[in-house]
Amino acid sequence: MQYSLGIDLGGSHIAAALVDEEGRLLFKKTRQTDISGGVKGVAADIGLLGQSLLKNLDHNKRASVEHVGVGVPGPIHPETRKIISAPNLGWEDVDLFSELVPYFPNQEIHIVNDATCAAWAEYKFGALQDYPNSMLLTLGTGLGGGLIYRGQVFDGGNSYGFEPGHTILVADGELCSCGRRGCLEAYVSVKALRREADKALKQYPDSLLLRDKSLDASMPYTIRELFAAAAAGDPAAKYSVDLYVHYLAIGIASFVVILQPEIIALGGGISHQGTEFYTGLQEAVARHLLAGARQPVPPVIPAKLGNDAGIVGAAISR
Amino acid sequence: MQYSLGIDLGGSHIAAALVDEEGRLLFKKTRQTDISGGVKGVAADIGLLGQSLLKNLDHNKRASVEHVGVGVPGPIHPETRKIISAPNLGWEDVDLFSELVPYFPNQEIHIVNDATCAAWAEYKFGALQDYPNSMLLTLGTGLGGGLIYRGQVFDGGNSYGFEPGHTILVADGELCSCGRRGCLEAYVSVKALRREADKALKQYPDSLLLRDKSLDASMPYTIRELFAAAAAGDPAAKYSVDLYVHYLAIGIASFVVILQPEIIALGGGISHQGTEFYTGLQEAVARHLLAGARQPVPPVIPAKLGNDAGIVGAAISR
Repeated sequence: MQYSLGIDLGGSHIAAALVDEEGRLLFKKTRQTDISGGVKGVAADIGLLGQSLLKNLDHNKRASVEHVGVGVPGPIHPETRKIISAPNLGWEDVDLFSELVPYFPNQEIHIVNDATCAAWAEYKFGALQDYPNSMLLTLGTGLGGGLIYRGQVFDGGNSYGFEPGHTILVADGELCSCGRRGCLEAYVSVKALRREADKALKQYPDSLLLRDKSLDASMPYTIRELFAAAAAGDPAAKYSVDLYVHYLAIGIASFVVILQPEIIALGGGISHQGTEFYTGLQEAVARHLLAGARQPVPPVIPAKLGNDAGIVGAAISR
Repeated sequence: MQYSLGIDLGGSHIAAALVDEEGRLLFKKTRQTDISGGVKGVAADIGLLGQSLLKNLDHNKRASVEHVGVGVPGPIHPETRKIISAPNLGWEDVDLFSELVPYFPNQEIHIVNDATCAAWAEYKFGALQDYPNSMLLTLGTGLGGGLIYRGQVFDGGNSYGFEPGHTILVADGELCSCGRRGCLEAYVSVKALRREADKALKQYPDSLLLRDKSLDASMPYTIRELFAAAAAGDPAAKYSVDLYVHYLAIGIASFVVILQPEIIALGGGISHQGTEFYTGLQEAVARHLLAGARQPVPPVIPAKLGNDAGIVGAAISR
């Protein structure tokens, strides 16, 4: 069995593992991301993490590892290989590639976009398998994603970055973390869920979400509790979850009329919901598409690879 | 020189011409679209128009015309070749292809989407030449367009239809002709321009637009007069044109963050504006993109082929 090294560099954690040709993980390790030492420090952390994984293999197998893929949260310049921008790391125009070369002298290193990686992994081994025209959306702190078009990653031809979270949902609407107004991400992120729930809680002081807690606390309820309360019929929670589904469905319908995916998989923290969430979302997407009448309604399903999609995708991206 | 026959089937007119290998038109003819006879009637009109053009060629040249392309305002099923839907013609699931075969027994017939045709023509011979990752938007009664990706037409892999006008600009916003709310088309169509100008005119009864006219008339001012009045500083006209540019810029920025075109050309009736319009639009697109900071700002330029783009694109589409 041939292995590659896959590394997922996120704003809070670095996760790495050896990945076999079937997308299975071996010896997964994670550590916290520490950006205080700049790109050199992060490269050293990645390098040592990767080397420690390679040491688990016997000499022959180790020598056969030819590829190290690093998924990063930002667009990569196709020629210079530099990270054009990675707001979660505070990076602009950073050459991680060159800093990593000394740590992996016997391997080819590829720096790739993390959301693109995840979509590619779901296409090769996960929920998008057998769908050469399909899409992954990751719902979490932000809204990321990747498009598979004719069995390849869609990269705009330029790798400037596929940023579904920064398409506009409400022109001149809510302020987004990117500085613009009305981005889809400003309506379907964890922050947006909390914003709307907090608004609703002022109307519903008896909400389950406030029963043993104070809204003044910095994190009075978890997203899991919010969805559980909504499922239990709590009006404030239900209001914010319903609004979330409404906006997400409109956003998805918007993608469908131009990108035309056959199926859409949802990953990221908020995607771990039961069938009721997916049924409701699917119906809302259908409503928003059927008025326009042209496109078939693509199924919306949970992603399969979870947090490992980034590692797997980095390992298999070339 | 080898010729193909290109036909642009629109809601109001059918335009046809012979097109040479350099995209030049020969013997262009147009007639009104008459849908009263159904698909058979339209096919007869197209067939006779095309045959009359072919008769202009001598026998040898006529025999060398191997291709008839028909651009239609709707998505085409990639296998059945049926027109899935063409609201401007009142058509659903219509087999124009089979109806045309008797009229062109010696030619291959291709039924293609009109906006896709126009984008392809602009890429091969017009404003998008030398830009293998680029986009055409057509501004008129509706908002159409096509994407060129890696030197090919982007068709989603399924040809379900690339409908930039029906992406969402304002969730739950203005009612669109498609029945949904908040589509980009509901903010950057001729109808939207008039809607906003009419609102503004109530505030500005002294407007140039009303000086010799009555707002009660069914078409009190033309779009050309509206833009001329805006350029002359008329407040009501300026308000609606500025708002149009604002919304169009936000829509364009939304496309850029996912589709990543290097350049965008504007066609259609509203696109025939001076450099001031394009400079203002370009600046607004830049403002909306720079906050997000990742993508380079693509130039926004006028299309070159005008109304002939559809004919040329149909003639050269395979």
